[in-house]
Amino acid sequence: MTATLVIGPYSDSDRDALNAGFDPVLVGGPSEVAALDESTRAGIRAVAFKGHHPFGAAEMDLLPALGLVANYGVGYDAIDVDAANARGIKVTNTPDVLNDDVADIAVGMLLMQMREMEHASAWARSGEWKAKGEYRLNRKMSGGTVGIVGLGRIGREIANRLAAFKMDIHYYARSEKDTPGWTYHADPVALAGAVDTLVVALVGGKDTENFVSAEMIDALGPRGVIANISRGTTIDEAAMLDALETGRIAGAALDVFLGEPNIDPRFYALPNVVIQPHQGSGTVETRAAMGQLQRDNVAAFHAGAELLTPVN
Amino acid sequence: MTATLVIGPYSDSDRDALNAGFDPVLVGGPSEVAALDESTRAGIRAVAFKGHHPFGAAEMDLLPALGLVANYGVGYDAIDVDAANARGIKVTNTPDVLNDDVADIAVGMLLMQMREMEHASAWARSGEWKAKGEYRLNRKMSGGTVGIVGLGRIGREIANRLAAFKMDIHYYARSEKDTPGWTYHADPVALAGAVDTLVVALVGGKDTENFVSAEMIDALGPRGVIANISRGTTIDEAAMLDALETGRIAGAALDVFLGEPNIDPRFYALPNVVIQPHQGSGTVETRAAMGQLQRDNVAAFHAGAELLTPVN
Repeated sequence: MTATLVIGPYSDSDRDALNAGFDPVLVGGPSEVAALDESTRAGIRAVAFKGHHPFGAAEMDLLPALGLVANYGVGYDAIDVDAANARGIKVTNTPDVLNDDVADIAVGMLLMQMREMEHASAWARSGEWKAKGEYRLNRKMSGGTVGIVGLGRIGREIANRLAAFKMDIHYYARSEKDTPGWTYHADPVALAGAVDTLVVALVGGKDTENFVSAEMIDALGPRGVIANISRGTTIDEAAMLDALETGRIAGAALDVFLGEPNIDPRFYALPNVVIQPHQGSGTVETRAAMGQLQRDNVAAFHAGAELLTPVN
Repeated sequence: MTATLVIGPYSDSDRDALNAGFDPVLVGGPSEVAALDESTRAGIRAVAFKGHHPFGAAEMDLLPALGLVANYGVGYDAIDVDAANARGIKVTNTPDVLNDDVADIAVGMLLMQMREMEHASAWARSGEWKAKGEYRLNRKMSGGTVGIVGLGRIGREIANRLAAFKMDIHYYARSEKDTPGWTYHADPVALAGAVDTLVVALVGGKDTENFVSAEMIDALGPRGVIANISRGTTIDEAAMLDALETGRIAGAALDVFLGEPNIDPRFYALPNVVIQPHQGSGTVETRAAMGQLQRDNVAAFHAGAELLTPVN
């Protein structure tokens, strides 16, 4: 009887490694758990979870012997940790290994937005460079002011990079951190008012829903650019769309959205928004490291050893 | 009689400022100098120059009282400095004020190339994200190895930024520089062999023509990416195109080309090349600073004061 259930879409190499390591049952998403027969469900002690569909009390109760949900990804907002705690189920994630890639995408999106690099590319490729001359002037990024919303591991990696662009770093966090002279704001609206660029690097989940509020967006102002590499939920997306469409902020650079991949089509109509398809951690190197860390957590659990990266 | 000749295409604000400061004669390019009447030409003591068409001995000899050519831009390869020296003509440029913007474009292009950000954007915008799921995995930039070809002012700005991406910095320069532990290569082919990414930040002009040779490109190898923000002339472009088309290097990220804006159309057919229309310094802030520095040099010359940024 297999003790491991693998949930979610995996790459071929991750699936091969999961099969080799755990001889698991595999399903495509949490909604398929109920269709497994009762004896299979009764044997499952660990779930290797990947995806953004909710895995909560109902799914956990279908797996009475469950002791671990090992998430693939640093953000485990799809997993109901309160429900896990109530059932004595441990949850792990894959932190740190993806920090660099996500920070890289944040910086790349900001450069693309301010320097209009996608439009400039199209200017060359369409023949307009040849026919009409130089692409229009755009906006200097280096030396500007930036506010990091959430100075956790990823937020700090972003700040470290932007400091090398001579940007004046401000940040919000629940408490002041040890930094190289960056400016702390306990009030997120004051942060937004102090900077031209906001980079959202919050943890996802219910506690941070709509954290970047209409009030923060208005405080950011008409030169303001919002970058988000966290979760679509962390921003009041309706307020941001209104502000983008009416010029109350200058632009956005977004790797995450509500309802991915069925994102609000208004984003596609906005020339001042850089769009990435949630590919922050999407490199061969980092996804391999994330898969390995997920499997290491599952293996540690089955061996009765200490979990590598528990979240509860 | 006016003493200043303005050559080249200028923005409205730069033209207004030149008119206000110097009541100059204005022409669109160096080829139009010969059409000015002789008495106008005889009065010209300073040229405010912008553009990439050659300004050499023939043009200088049309302006017998010429004492200054003030270039708009850090690269003054369009101006024949030897011919200027032979005639006692001073040349100035606009260094430093554009270093940050050019370095920003270099880093932005590298991120776009390695993380395939333009293709990922198209994946979302075309509906493929919705229909087919995640964009394909790509390549981690942070933590890689990079070779800076030419560690002048701009090269150093690029290196400082890439160091914040935890990249292992190697460089070529005519002599070893004081650096924070970066690796010096006196041999550019050895540099190319030691790294995955080359960023070309050489001065333009005859001395650096085809500096990045077929041999360097082959030494870079199949994971190699070349970024160029200097001049199209600094790379053996034919060798680079061959290597890109045959997979002997992985990709390129180019803001400069031979024959701009009529660049080789083979570049447009290559999915692994990020193309920018020579917009390295193309921000409102930096172009204003470049125009101001050019005018400050012209004003200093007319006042008999020390030039701010002479190159000869």
